[in-house]
Amino acid sequence: MNLKVALIMGSDSDLPVVRKAVDELVALGIDYEAHVMSAHRTPDQAAQFAKTARDNGFGVIIAAAGMAAHLAGVLAAHTTLPVIGIPCKGGAGDGLDALLATVQMPSGVPVATVALNGGANAALLAAQMLALADDALAAKLAQRKLEMAEAVLQKDAELQKIIYN
Amino acid sequence: MNLKVALIMGSDSDLPVVRKAVDELVALGIDYEAHVMSAHRTPDQAAQFAKTARDNGFGVIIAAAGMAAHLAGVLAAHTTLPVIGIPCKGGAGDGLDALLATVQMPSGVPVATVALNGGANAALLAAQMLALADDALAAKLAQRKLEMAEAVLQKDAELQKIIYN
Amino acid sequence: MNLKVALIMGSDSDLPVVRKAVDELVALGIDYEAHVMSAHRTPDQAAQFAKTARDNGFGVIIAAAGMAAHLAGVLAAHTTLPVIGIPCKGGAGDGLDALLATVQMPSGVPVATVALNGGANAALLAAQMLALADDALAAKLAQRKLEMAEAVLQKDAELQKIIYN
Amino acid sequence: MNLKVALIMGSDSDLPVVRKAVDELVALGIDYEAHVMSAHRTPDQAAQFAKTARDNGFGVIIAAAGMAAHLAGVLAAHTTLPVIGIPCKGGAGDGLDALLATVQMPSGVPVATVALNGGANAALLAAQMLALADDALAAKLAQRKLEMAEAVLQKDAELQKIIYN
Amino acid sequence: MNLKVALIMGSDSDLPVVRKAVDELVALGIDYEAHVMSAHRTPDQAAQFAKTARDNGFGVIIAAAGMAAHLAGVLAAHTTLPVIGIPCKGGAGDGLDALLATVQMPSGVPVATVALNGGANAALLAAQMLALADDALAAKLAQRKLEMAEAVLQKDAELQKIIYN
Amino acid sequence: MNLKVALIMGSDSDLPVVRKAVDELVALGIDYEAHVMSAHRTPDQAAQFAKTARDNGFGVIIAAAGMAAHLAGVLAAHTTLPVIGIPCKGGAGDGLDALLATVQMPSGVPVATVALNGGANAALLAAQMLALADDALAAKLAQRKLEMAEAVLQKDAELQKIIYN
Amino acid sequence: MNLKVALIMGSDSDLPVVRKAVDELVALGIDYEAHVMSAHRTPDQAAQFAKTARDNGFGVIIAAAGMAAHLAGVLAAHTTLPVIGIPCKGGAGDGLDALLATVQMPSGVPVATVALNGGANAALLAAQMLALADDALAAKLAQRKLEMAEAVLQKDAELQKIIYN
Amino acid sequence: MNLKVALIMGSDSDLPVVRKAVDELVALGIDYEAHVMSAHRTPDQAAQFAKTARDNGFGVIIAAAGMAAHLAGVLAAHTTLPVIGIPCKGGAGDGLDALLATVQMPSGVPVATVALNGGANAALLAAQMLALADDALAAKLAQRKLEMAEAVLQKDAELQKIIYN
Repeated sequence: MNLKVALIMGSDSDLPVVRKAVDELVALGIDYEAHVMSAHRTPDQAAQFAKTARDNGFGVIIAAAGMAAHLAGVLAAHTTLPVIGIPCKGGAGDGLDALLATVQMPSGVPVATVALNGGANAALLAAQMLALADDALAAKLAQRKLEMAEAVLQKDAELQKIIYN
Repeated sequence: MNLKVALIMGSDSDLPVVRKAVDELVALGIDYEAHVMSAHRTPDQAAQFAKTARDNGFGVIIAAAGMAAHLAGVLAAHTTLPVIGIPCKGGAGDGLDALLATVQMPSGVPVATVALNGGANAALLAAQMLALADDALAAKLAQRKLEMAEAVLQKDAELQKIIYN
Repeated sequence: MNLKVALIMGSDSDLPVVRKAVDELVALGIDYEAHVMSAHRTPDQAAQFAKTARDNGFGVIIAAAGMAAHLAGVLAAHTTLPVIGIPCKGGAGDGLDALLATVQMPSGVPVATVALNGGANAALLAAQMLALADDALAAKLAQRKLEMAEAVLQKDAELQKIIYN
Repeated sequence: MNLKVALIMGSDSDLPVVRKAVDELVALGIDYEAHVMSAHRTPDQAAQFAKTARDNGFGVIIAAAGMAAHLAGVLAAHTTLPVIGIPCKGGAGDGLDALLATVQMPSGVPVATVALNGGANAALLAAQMLALADDALAAKLAQRKLEMAEAVLQKDAELQKIIYN
Repeated sequence: MNLKVALIMGSDSDLPVVRKAVDELVALGIDYEAHVMSAHRTPDQAAQFAKTARDNGFGVIIAAAGMAAHLAGVLAAHTTLPVIGIPCKGGAGDGLDALLATVQMPSGVPVATVALNGGANAALLAAQMLALADDALAAKLAQRKLEMAEAVLQKDAELQKIIYN
Repeated sequence: MNLKVALIMGSDSDLPVVRKAVDELVALGIDYEAHVMSAHRTPDQAAQFAKTARDNGFGVIIAAAGMAAHLAGVLAAHTTLPVIGIPCKGGAGDGLDALLATVQMPSGVPVATVALNGGANAALLAAQMLALADDALAAKLAQRKLEMAEAVLQKDAELQKIIYN
Repeated sequence: MNLKVALIMGSDSDLPVVRKAVDELVALGIDYEAHVMSAHRTPDQAAQFAKTARDNGFGVIIAAAGMAAHLAGVLAAHTTLPVIGIPCKGGAGDGLDALLATVQMPSGVPVATVALNGGANAALLAAQMLALADDALAAKLAQRKLEMAEAVLQKDAELQKIIYN
Repeated sequence: MNLKVALIMGSDSDLPVVRKAVDELVALGIDYEAHVMSAHRTPDQAAQFAKTARDNGFGVIIAAAGMAAHLAGVLAAHTTLPVIGIPCKGGAGDGLDALLATVQMPSGVPVATVALNGGANAALLAAQMLALADDALAAKLAQRKLEMAEAVLQKDAELQKIIYN
């Protein structure tokens, strides 16, 4: 049975960012569950989710949160599964708050941090982790990399048509 | 019976900052307990402490932590006591990480944040809270304010002796 | 007689932020007074207000200001009541000016700083302080915390209906 | 056969940071190779290393670099293995340069970024990834988490002896 | 035969910035080629382009990229031609990410960095370099400088008509 | 009778910065008074000083303070004399706190801000203001400007002797 | 004859900021001249203006510029009149570039810096300088300060009508 | 006759940074002149130098300055030669002031900015520009690039000896 990816968002306002992760996971055929769960408003549920995540068939946890983004760190405190943090821009800050609150974890409890609002990359990173023991998924990722390069070459070809006008 | 102040530090490297808070509390005759407790390394103990703090006779919780300083927020998630956060400078960051991770709390779970390494002010702020129902403490704070002004005037007098040389 | 909360804003342009604090205080049944008062334009009135606040029945002062936000600090200079500062985003800066000018208070005169534009949390923090000597208010805060958690669980339930489409 | 971890540093001045990663990997019994390799000075070797890393038995690549830290991103461009970036403080900047240059990767090519100088966490994160298909390693990580908590409790016990003096 | 300028953009979303460079080059009569090419998505093509740029008649390479802007640095790694980097504002960051990732190059591999979104200046800088061996181009640049001053004087004259109303 | 310059420092730890201002004033033959006076610890004295400064023969007030540097703004609130603010680096911040808290004054109450720790420039700026009605002082400033240029030329001459070795 | 104020803007895009200064000067009855003049595009005109400003009847120079805002510093290099710098937000930066480029002047050549886009305060600061030798202007400034306080009190009175609804 | 490189530093305190540029130029056999010259203290000399630089045999101007680093921009205002700016860390700022003041030049007057304190890279960039019309210099740069790669490989070999102990 394949490992699932958990997508936890601190607020439903983070859904547009998480949606990009969902789209990648679906495209790669990876099972997932998505939840709204807050490090500050439902801390016990968050802790419980993380503690039981491995036994419940999850391989990776992705956490998206903004402002003083503690969610990824709080989940990581309760599991040894890899936790990926997506700092979300939002509130009255400029996103640096969420980035620093996600990435600057103390020694012993890492969070794998991706770019601000980096939903797609969080999903790809999760897929790369799962692909370590899943050759079919690894092949899909390699294929996706080729297509991504192809898309750039295509953009370049289109550029040639428009740049000199 | 008087309410106690809890002093929680995320790492014993934060002790110099917390020591300044202890000194203020002792000077004001406020009972306290000090603990090392980590939002990431001992999350269950931290949660349990916050959940039972009110019943255990605490009136205010002060949390000192650096880097992605989640400690104050994690404690605040589990109590309705006022939680004071001291962002501590440390690690390879410049302190802005700890400040933003402490102060930028989402709506519903406030943390009363003081200055970087502001141990003394955290204790004074706790005392101000406790003094709302403790006239003797309020009088001590008023007295301390007078002495503080007096000390500045004294410094000014000393300055007059040295500045013109 | 219950202690009141003072809501001081440096400019009426800060009213949207203060309005969130008002809403929380009203919901919790806490008396308040709101004023426009400027650290720079009406410094004597601000000083006078702070000096007499305790005698006038206030327990906590909340100050909202932007840019070089001196208001909370100036009020704190004249009282031993706890002063909560709300740094407001505004003017041509990005809010970091107001945050640093509010939180980085020197030893001896603390300001309990909340998040940028954090009106609701300022009110909740004031309520937490007042609840130290008001069991009914403490119970309301505990109840509010439960409702907040319930709201997140409800959001999660709603998410389950929409995420897989 | 177990997957190895590659430790690539952009300059030998990053060795103190990488050494912390080595220590963790050794403690967890994970095979590794360490190399000095530069995105800017030996770009072909770096590209070649990344392209062949999977076939050469690596499961995770850790890259440590400072300033305009391109190393992790350049390696990630050439592999679908998970790449962990350690932004290193150094040069005349304050580390924000390395952090932003490591974490703000464009969609399609993630880098799992850890804290500034976060060598130990990079190794732990790599171990968490490898443990998805290695139950013995997962058990070691769970054990390590318990010991980490125990160490904090021990620090707290020591604190009780010194704080009241 | 005159040396050409290469205009490389990491994404076609950078085209508005590059377009300003194109306009300057066209106005100065400098040959150019424009390409979409990504340090992360088409790293081999980018490397190959840089390695052969001198032999292919290019004198200067301009690279425009946002976020963790590695493009200019990656190109510079493969050539001894001068490489000009334009940090582009974009994504969820505020542009400081692109600026630092472009300018903070390690010793040995310089990137000549211009202002955020500074497309026109990148082209002018390239022209200044080419003009070192092209007196006609140097004369055009001197003429352009005069016109630029004339335009400011004209603006000042217009201001005199409107400011006093 | 000539106007005096007031030099107010928020703490005697700012004396090294203020000393540079004193040295300039002495060199220019300008009368001054120096005081330790705190916006937060002796707010009434600070207000009183500012209110009476014009009548007491002062022409300019210079205020040096660090952290949440309110001193210059608080003084400016109580006078229409020009107030010069020197943001001082100190405490656990990096000086940006003091700079923003000094310069970002709201409309109606300006503070003339100089560089971080810019004691000498604060004095020179005060002198420039006083020189508007003091031709002898204006002549001294012009002379000082010449000497400053001369000193640079001298440095350049010295450089020629050492650079080629 | 009264001294005039020079208002120099680096680009006509800074006019909205300068307009606020004009309005203040007009309200205070201060003569002024406004010019577009660039430190980089018309450096000789800017230098010439500053060199002759005192002889041409100016008492204060106000310079408004954005990005790498050199204008105030360049003017200050050529005069001993006080120069006030208004850092303007604009271009792709967030205004911190203009603020730092204006305020961080080296020892010997001060620029009196006001807030980002602080046109009104620049004019008031200029008036405060001129008022040192102009009692009528000083009286106007004192009157304006009273009116400003009155306006805040009026805002407070209006607030009382709306806040409780 | 070969074009020379001008090395202008705003203060002799920048000499350590400029020395690294000198060393590179000497190693590459490029003629240079070094001068202390200030945008603010000797503005006329700086302007004059830039205006006559092309006629005096210079091909590139390198300017090193700290704080509100106007030097490179001021020189660029007076010449169409390429100007390379080295932002120098110094004074009470953290270098971001010098970086932004150097790189954020307005359209029309570019400065080719290198890393903070990036003396060596400034010289290499100048050499790359001169090499556009100097094949022997281009060959030296290509050779230097090879040696730089070789040095990294050598570091890697040395690492293999020490990392496993």
